[in-house]
Amino acid sequence: MSLKKNAFYAQSGGVTAVINASACGVIETARKHKSKIGKLYAGRNGIIGALTEDMIDTGKESTKAIAALRHTPGGAFGSARYKLKSLEENRAEYERLIEVFRAHNIGYFFYNGGGDSADTCYKVSQLSKELGFPVQAIHVPKTVDNDLPITDTCPGFGSVAKYIAVSTQEAALDVASMARTSTKVFVLEVMGRHAGWIAAAGGLAGQTRNDAPHIILFPEVPFNKNAFLKRVKECVRDNEYCVVIVSEGAAYKDGTFLADAGTTDAFGHKQLGGVAQVVAQMVRDELGFKYHYALADYLQRSARHIASKTDVEQAYAVGKAAVEMALAGANSVMPAIIRKSDKPYKWTIEKAPLSRVANKEKMMPKRFITKDGFGITAACRRYLEPLIKGEDYPPYKDGLPKYVTLKGVSVTKKLKTDFVV
Amino acid sequence: MSLKKNAFYAQSGGVTAVINASACGVIETARKHKSKIGKLYAGRNGIIGALTEDMIDTGKESTKAIAALRHTPGGAFGSARYKLKSLEENRAEYERLIEVFRAHNIGYFFYNGGGDSADTCYKVSQLSKELGFPVQAIHVPKTVDNDLPITDTCPGFGSVAKYIAVSTQEAALDVASMARTSTKVFVLEVMGRHAGWIAAAGGLAGQTRNDAPHIILFPEVPFNKNAFLKRVKECVRDNEYCVVIVSEGAAYKDGTFLADAGTTDAFGHKQLGGVAQVVAQMVRDELGFKYHYALADYLQRSARHIASKTDVEQAYAVGKAAVEMALAGANSVMPAIIRKSDKPYKWTIEKAPLSRVANKEKMMPKRFITKDGFGITAACRRYLEPLIKGEDYPPYKDGLPKYVTLKGVSVTKKLKTDFVV
Repeated sequence: MSLKKNAFYAQSGGVTAVINASACGVIETARKHKSKIGKLYAGRNGIIGALTEDMIDTGKESTKAIAALRHTPGGAFGSARYKLKSLEENRAEYERLIEVFRAHNIGYFFYNGGGDSADTCYKVSQLSKELGFPVQAIHVPKTVDNDLPITDTCPGFGSVAKYIAVSTQEAALDVASMARTSTKVFVLEVMGRHAGWIAAAGGLAGQTRNDAPHIILFPEVPFNKNAFLKRVKECVRDNEYCVVIVSEGAAYKDGTFLADAGTTDAFGHKQLGGVAQVVAQMVRDELGFKYHYALADYLQRSARHIASKTDVEQAYAVGKAAVEMALAGANSVMPAIIRKSDKPYKWTIEKAPLSRVANKEKMMPKRFITKDGFGITAACRRYLEPLIKGEDYPPYKDGLPKYVTLKGVSVTKKLKTDFVV
Repeated sequence: MSLKKNAFYAQSGGVTAVINASACGVIETARKHKSKIGKLYAGRNGIIGALTEDMIDTGKESTKAIAALRHTPGGAFGSARYKLKSLEENRAEYERLIEVFRAHNIGYFFYNGGGDSADTCYKVSQLSKELGFPVQAIHVPKTVDNDLPITDTCPGFGSVAKYIAVSTQEAALDVASMARTSTKVFVLEVMGRHAGWIAAAGGLAGQTRNDAPHIILFPEVPFNKNAFLKRVKECVRDNEYCVVIVSEGAAYKDGTFLADAGTTDAFGHKQLGGVAQVVAQMVRDELGFKYHYALADYLQRSARHIASKTDVEQAYAVGKAAVEMALAGANSVMPAIIRKSDKPYKWTIEKAPLSRVANKEKMMPKRFITKDGFGITAACRRYLEPLIKGEDYPPYKDGLPKYVTLKGVSVTKKLKTDFVV
């Protein structure tokens, strides 16, 4: 077995428009350091690929294909919603990971994800030492939820933010021009079950109280039906229309999600309509306004065609930094984006210890939400604006983006044992 | 009163990402012919602006603002869903139009819309002659539904088509990368109550049977639940995931819309969920697959950020041609786009008589839909591909498109009478 260690990279959780840009950063940087890093393997379907010894040899991909990852959304190697349990509950999983790493001489573990993967990363680095096969575990930040601590923002968020701000601006122009005889109230449902970062980004579409979006419903602000309806009514009176952004996590004071209306259809099935529909119907029933609603769902987090240039650059940079930190001997850290100034936006990348990242959620600060609970403050705007700045268009052919599909050549298995996940 | 006639322009029906590009074509071309066309007025909120004598003087807008219309979505002057009744039913409305035109010396009427506005345009040209104030009425084609006859395509459609094709491609990458542990079936609902043109455009995202979208549900094809579920099951078996595009107009054999599930919520309100939700829930109930669905709604028809260059050029060209045709003495016509070749796509603009345009809908030909009813044929692809070709990005500032808002200076009223619409 060579002295030179191999590396393993995996994508975790919901994918984004730029997680592959981080993969690109990791792979291109590793390729520049072939004297120190041997093979770079990627988990097929994330960490499951490590547990089941189902890995992709990134070395079989061309320079051009790897470069194209920078502008390709989704997770090129497959991602997974698979949370490793705690060490106490399922030590076997961690031991299996180390077993696979040992079998393939993997000394570097780059895990690209959110809070859960930071936690896994942290545990792997701890346990690997204990088991006598030390692995340098580096967490590469990613999450559209923007809820990781320390880092100024999470790669993936800036692009969703841009998509939602642009879409809000565009749909608002549509609604405004038709309001005289058609739709008065338009509701856009956005992601964010716990934190309202994405909903807040929609607020960038307007500058004043009379600009769309007129109302933002944050998960952080308990829903007050009367206050909401009053504001809708005023808004239609003053502007002839009203644009509402609602976070999927918007909830009543007692914690019940608005989307969880408790209704069932004629067959007794639980009604699974989204929160936009619930809010829109409420407006119609109580105020009689014609409505439309949109549910961007996966469109928002995969919209690479309108990615934020800042976001793409940061996504690449954290991937690159992860490899450089590993080569400099770091372990159990995350490359964090540190803001140096708002305007112009300046940032650097620094090491954040995983012990301070794992299992911590960064919520929207109260000072980012206006007193009435329906909008964003100047401070929030100052924070968000640089994150959506710049365009980074993918190349097109025949009207469609040229996104890459990798060959995904499997690494030959070395272990005799199967592992069922 | 000057010998030189003034002109009137109005936007009608649902707006699009490029209807303002047509307005730009009309206004810029009229400005080039100031010796022949006097003032160019626009109806505030479409034809309602003419009926109520509420017009905007486009002459008060700067050259720069008018140029910016080319890249601004929505309807810059306001549009309306307001169909003039037949001459027999409401002759007073037509007479009022002519009265306003006469008062403002309007000899050119440019009406930018779909089938209904073509009909109005036609009637105005007929009646104005009869009433002794001849108006040259030119219909400027627009509709995301792509259902006007004679013209190769309708400005507005190409950009929705591109948005849906790109969004499908992107969301499919997302779903594919997560399918191992998360969503298996993704449903995207698109516009098109009568014709499946927009749904068909989603088909451009994939090339083979195993590419997404795997299933398209057209309004033209009666929904067969068993065949649909069978195909979903096979698709998940073969690809681990399945992407479905459903037209809002998808219906059962007896004509009942899928969306009209006849269900009511706990309060007895009619359930207004979209068709995507109905289809997704069907998949879950019958096959047990985890699903997600998206409803692009207005986002699709206002997405100027990803407009088709071909579409923008055609939208501008029909506006320009409308004015040129009027100046050449034409009346009761529509500038129609005539396809000369598929690849490279070549087209010209020719006059189509409104008598042949009004009240005719162009449906998807049968040969554009595959035998199983779930996909598009090579012929359909050959037709659609050029329409989404090319990108025409708007300018950006601070991460957001710089869309223009016009001053909208009102024209002084000349009539003493009010008209209630």
